[in-house]
Amino acid sequence: MIDINKVRFDTPGCQDKIFLNSAGSSLVPNIVSDTMYQYLEQERMIGGYQTALIQQDKIDEFYIQSSLLLNCEPKNIAFSYNATDAYAKALSSINFRSGDVILTSDDDYISNYIAFFSLKKRFGIEIVRIKNLDNGDIDLIDAEEKMVTCKPILVSITHVPTNSGKIQPVEKIGELCATYDIWYIVDACQSVGQIIVDVKKIKCDFLSATGRKFLRGPRGTGLLYISDKALNAGLEPLMIDMRGAKWNSEQSYSPIDTARRFELWEVSYSNLMGLTEAIKYANQIGLGNIQSANLKLINLLKSTLIQNIDIHLTEEGSRSASIVTFSSRSKPLEYFVQKLNDANVSYGVGYREFALIDFNKKDVDWVIRLSPHYFNTEQEIMNTVEVLAPV
Amino acid sequence: MIDINKVRFDTPGCQDKIFLNSAGSSLVPNIVSDTMYQYLEQERMIGGYQTALIQQDKIDEFYIQSSLLLNCEPKNIAFSYNATDAYAKALSSINFRSGDVILTSDDDYISNYIAFFSLKKRFGIEIVRIKNLDNGDIDLIDAEEKMVTCKPILVSITHVPTNSGKIQPVEKIGELCATYDIWYIVDACQSVGQIIVDVKKIKCDFLSATGRKFLRGPRGTGLLYISDKALNAGLEPLMIDMRGAKWNSEQSYSPIDTARRFELWEVSYSNLMGLTEAIKYANQIGLGNIQSANLKLINLLKSTLIQNIDIHLTEEGSRSASIVTFSSRSKPLEYFVQKLNDANVSYGVGYREFALIDFNKKDVDWVIRLSPHYFNTEQEIMNTVEVLAPV
Repeated sequence: MIDINKVRFDTPGCQDKIFLNSAGSSLVPNIVSDTMYQYLEQERMIGGYQTALIQQDKIDEFYIQSSLLLNCEPKNIAFSYNATDAYAKALSSINFRSGDVILTSDDDYISNYIAFFSLKKRFGIEIVRIKNLDNGDIDLIDAEEKMVTCKPILVSITHVPTNSGKIQPVEKIGELCATYDIWYIVDACQSVGQIIVDVKKIKCDFLSATGRKFLRGPRGTGLLYISDKALNAGLEPLMIDMRGAKWNSEQSYSPIDTARRFELWEVSYSNLMGLTEAIKYANQIGLGNIQSANLKLINLLKSTLIQNIDIHLTEEGSRSASIVTFSSRSKPLEYFVQKLNDANVSYGVGYREFALIDFNKKDVDWVIRLSPHYFNTEQEIMNTVEVLAPV
Repeated sequence: MIDINKVRFDTPGCQDKIFLNSAGSSLVPNIVSDTMYQYLEQERMIGGYQTALIQQDKIDEFYIQSSLLLNCEPKNIAFSYNATDAYAKALSSINFRSGDVILTSDDDYISNYIAFFSLKKRFGIEIVRIKNLDNGDIDLIDAEEKMVTCKPILVSITHVPTNSGKIQPVEKIGELCATYDIWYIVDACQSVGQIIVDVKKIKCDFLSATGRKFLRGPRGTGLLYISDKALNAGLEPLMIDMRGAKWNSEQSYSPIDTARRFELWEVSYSNLMGLTEAIKYANQIGLGNIQSANLKLINLLKSTLIQNIDIHLTEEGSRSASIVTFSSRSKPLEYFVQKLNDANVSYGVGYREFALIDFNKKDVDWVIRLSPHYFNTEQEIMNTVEVLAPV
């Protein structure tokens, strides 16, 4: 059980508004900003290098907390500047050749798709999409067939899409990737921090996550999990630097053993400290508890919103994360924006160009996204539903 | 003229020690940390996205101040997470093919070399080094000959090496690159903030810089200049994302017009704000004034250190930036480390594996690096020399 009073006390930002944008950029608990201020204050007084030297143990704590979060070893974790940075570095470790296939879903993140298109332009790779079933779930039979026929070099799945709240069956796809021995990357940007994410169960080679969303960490932070299999196979980022490699001779280098070969040497340690505290905070509450609390909130929100005749939910799939999106055929976007702003509700907006494939299928130009998190109350959910109710 | 009292008043970290490590990570002026705290405080209260929306004008100021610093337009500037990140993204924009030559110097930065080796391993590029003259200056005749005979696709020069204080003739090499129409990248990690860096005069296509060193900004920040020529030629980072490109159709994207196509969407805006203030602070003092003040300090330091019989300066070249390195044949590293620590002097240490080619030539295993900046006083320089004097 979550002590909601304590959690809200730790989160001054949630006390004067209804904050429903944790899928955008959440509210940090006090310990995150306090730790960052302390670190920055030390840097101001003695400089960045001396501070990092003194704080080495607390820096190491980042890898420990992250490994507890994802169920792996600290050596499998790299710090990154955001989820896309983590994802891009992982992608860059594969030596793509003309004709290589990346197998992905219709619901993969826009920036992943743009990176695929860039790889297509540069190296001539091909992008193949797994079909969805009519209910929006990914078609696992089609996935397996395409693994067999297209022989992809990489499978990429976005765990929870940014433009809707479904949870993809990443464990089942992981089984298939293991069977057919295919590199497997999971974009967990919208899942880490709100549901249990277990890399052992997912059986992925790479998993990327961000700090600022459901983990409630600072902006400009993220992390990358890399499997032992990928490390042992010698995968390394194309633009490896002196953090990830040793300069051996005038003609060569060798990558280090751990996942930190995917980091660059220079890091904002105040941000890393903030992210560490955010992860620790989540670990202490427990991801199982967070997941349960969120499921209650989102079920309440969906079941009441669905009764609103002005809107239609743009949700599909059989498993729901703590994100709900809706659009309207009778009212313009501005109508809802005005209502939510007037009532001091924080929310997100998505446009067609952010999720082209999905929005083309749904034939919507915009959605409003509400993403409750465990610091929200049922009363806040009901108040929001009331705000959106037809007059 | 610099108001040294004001500058030191703005820099609490310089008041209780002799800080001579601006080439490592410098001391920020108060305005940098104060601005970051204010920004982070707003994020704590209203969340990261809402804060960025409200602070858009101040975010735009980063591009304006950076363009004033480097003598270009704001549209030619991209924010980066550090200098190596900026450099790597620039490098990734070139479609390297087997046999392509990168022409560089013996003094280019370790992480640049490691990236070159990675490109060699992945794509079969070749790395050719311009010779140095006996005095350590780069041999411009050899540079031109190699441009003609090797037809490099890219010339890379580190403006001021990290392991010694010479200033490379980047303008003269820029002339040659323009004549022979070769892409030209300058690593200005150790020069920006301490001397005038003018991209129009250098005629480079890319210039990478860091925040934390002589610019006195936060850790985890940097910037990349990209020329109109490179932008108009359509150069774009391999791992472009939704910041740098628009998703046009289900099969394609188009890069945006400005240098921001080299950014990723997600950024630590508190860090960007801090860097903006650091650049503004430097611009207000004037880079010409900073350069003059630093030259005085470094000349005093070198001319007095050279009289110390325990040490030998590991410096060469005809133009000196505000970095001096020394080693010793009579005393171990620990001897000097102890003396400097006891006297509360901040300094840097370099080891052979950080600058393999240079240190092999000089036959040293370590150097101590002292890097004064304009907030230092002549008295501090003399005190440091005294500390190091033979007993």
